[in-house]
Amino acid sequence: MSKKVAVILSGCGVYDGAEIHESVITLLRLDQRGAQVQCFAPNVAQLHVINHLTGEEMPESRNVLVESARIARGNVKDIREARVEDFDALIVPGGFGAAKNLSDFAINGADCTVQPDVLALGKAFAAAGKPVGLICIAPSLAARFFGEGVICTIGNDADTAAALEKMGASHEECVVGDVVEDAQRKLVSTPAYMLAQSISEAASGINKLVDRVLELTSNP
Amino acid sequence: MSKKVAVILSGCGVYDGAEIHESVITLLRLDQRGAQVQCFAPNVAQLHVINHLTGEEMPESRNVLVESARIARGNVKDIREARVEDFDALIVPGGFGAAKNLSDFAINGADCTVQPDVLALGKAFAAAGKPVGLICIAPSLAARFFGEGVICTIGNDADTAAALEKMGASHEECVVGDVVEDAQRKLVSTPAYMLAQSISEAASGINKLVDRVLELTSNP
Repeated sequence: MSKKVAVILSGCGVYDGAEIHESVITLLRLDQRGAQVQCFAPNVAQLHVINHLTGEEMPESRNVLVESARIARGNVKDIREARVEDFDALIVPGGFGAAKNLSDFAINGADCTVQPDVLALGKAFAAAGKPVGLICIAPSLAARFFGEGVICTIGNDADTAAALEKMGASHEECVVGDVVEDAQRKLVSTPAYMLAQSISEAASGINKLVDRVLELTSNP
Repeated sequence: MSKKVAVILSGCGVYDGAEIHESVITLLRLDQRGAQVQCFAPNVAQLHVINHLTGEEMPESRNVLVESARIARGNVKDIREARVEDFDALIVPGGFGAAKNLSDFAINGADCTVQPDVLALGKAFAAAGKPVGLICIAPSLAARFFGEGVICTIGNDADTAAALEKMGASHEECVVGDVVEDAQRKLVSTPAYMLAQSISEAASGINKLVDRVLELTSNP
């Protein structure tokens, strides 16, 4: 039986949406391992639009679901349609979108609020004991999904790690090619572009995360 | 010595820009094989902007170079800065952007015009005898780059193949996991999403193309 995995995208582009390399590497590895994937995204406006050539904000508005469809080649659904019963696991790639569109962690740090539909789905996977993979900055969602004491990593950035600890997470340092696992909660995280100096470095940790998340679906 | 490869992007999204999966798989394989990569794109407006969720045209304008920067994480240059002397090979991923922004093949078929800076760079690689890889619909550039008789593939779509033949190319059918090589001209092409039913099918042919293009840089 092939495993069914929900992937939450947060736009299309590292500075204002889902990190494209992390998202594609996740989709590729899942497909290579025989998983069935459905992408989801919240149907909301992006926090802002960044010109990825200059880093400047652009005077326009884009929708997270519509831009996520670029990565998903059209095959993405409103996250409100996602039901935990239909899936064996959940994975959230990084990029600033995870901290600007799925939550406001990029603005409010430890006092952040998670987008309500994203929060509901994340908490539902946690409550169901189904494995979750969080990549790059997406582990900033971990304490809101799992509550106090959840073990995760964003690599080794001290300020970000301190913000996660303030939210109730227990942060463990991790190198780019490895993952941190909270065995009790079935949460796997990896630093990816929080640390990666190249796309193949990012892939090394993401591939390990995808493989471990899929293993956990078979080890209840 | 690591090989230096120029990659031409055409925006960010299959329906109006560079196909994201094809582009990322190309960048990943090049990096995994130790190549140094520089992305380029023309600094021009996209033909149009497509809502990738609905397939409808959106009433806005986006710049090919600026949107390509999303795939390249900011590391993309205006194609006018690309000098053939600085590189060992050239690769062009597909997506409608290759036929809407790099040329107008999607509109004018065999009567298409190639964007002048793209045409100049492609012809320079052809004249220098340096290997070129064209993915998906990008082989619609082959006859303009290499002239009459160039051998290439876009898979097995009869109408598209006929248009390429009308432009002077010699089309060979190819399955998704394979490549067609014009040994004399050092041109390698693969169908990717012209045929792929999944991201791992696309990756199978693209990985073979990247590997062969890199091999050809060492076999003058």
